[in-house]
Amino acid sequence: MAGPPARPLDQRIRDTLDRLEHDIDAWFATADPAGSSCLVPLSFLWDGHTLLISTAGTNPTARFLEATGTIRIALGHTRDVVLINAELRETIPTAEIPDEVGDAFTAKTGFDPREQRGGYPYFRLAPRQVQAWREVNELIGRDLMTDGRWLTGDATPGREAPDTRRAAVT
Amino acid sequence: MAGPPARPLDQRIRDTLDRLEHDIDAWFATADPAGSSCLVPLSFLWDGHTLLISTAGTNPTARFLEATGTIRIALGHTRDVVLINAELRETIPTAEIPDEVGDAFTAKTGFDPREQRGGYPYFRLAPRQVQAWREVNELIGRDLMTDGRWLTGDATPGREAPDTRRAAVT
Repeated sequence: MAGPPARPLDQRIRDTLDRLEHDIDAWFATADPAGSSCLVPLSFLWDGHTLLISTAGTNPTARFLEATGTIRIALGHTRDVVLINAELRETIPTAEIPDEVGDAFTAKTGFDPREQRGGYPYFRLAPRQVQAWREVNELIGRDLMTDGRWLTGDATPGREAPDTRRAAVT
Repeated sequence: MAGPPARPLDQRIRDTLDRLEHDIDAWFATADPAGSSCLVPLSFLWDGHTLLISTAGTNPTARFLEATGTIRIALGHTRDVVLINAELRETIPTAEIPDEVGDAFTAKTGFDPREQRGGYPYFRLAPRQVQAWREVNELIGRDLMTDGRWLTGDATPGREAPDTRRAAVT
């Protein structure tokens, strides 16, 4: 039995924005300049354009992010994938976060960096590239954003070979 | 309301081995020697000691893995985390995979690299460090394997500051 048909671009963008709005955690992958990788789950707040996270400034995620300026984010499950390449737009010391932003972050995540001992800065991450797919029939058309812009139905950017070849649900 | 109590070490190891045995996909993070990160979902086969994956040799995961020899793997969800630091033990060209191993990989994953056009080598990954936790009450005691050895109940290795501070389920 075939799985559901591939979602069109506008549906994938709606589903992705819904996930950004409502998901509490995601996977965040960073790399140090020497080539080792870090991957951890973190809570985040989406404001319509950027993701806000917070982690100890001494942790690998914070150090690698500051060093490279880039991060790769995976939302959802391995069969309902949203992958985001983002850049570090701003590092905000805990003491400098506006009250309403800090409160919104805590209301969403249940975690208040302002109450942590030691430095837990906030990091504002701007997506530059977004992809979304569920099963193998959605690998084509998985690009939703390139160069920081959401695509429209007319765009057909070039594709590279998929990095994952999983079985379609049958 | 408090969540469930933290699982003891032996329970976490049993849960982790069960996940390695039965989960079909996981997140695989690699870094290139220049410091950019890659993160993708891939299917895998666990043989009791190593994970077997396959991806196109031209894909970032394959290239970064060959260049650095290391990979970071996340199984499960962001609230039932298994994190593995693994090293590349062996790269096996598609034509050299033993039939029974290739067949077992395909039976588990539903994907046969031997039928792909282009090179889809297999990569054998050996865990060196394994951590597992669910909620914040399990951050202490999250180390299950260090230096390639599963811990026993007597071990109390040093902990570093957690990279994630998520809310406990209440």
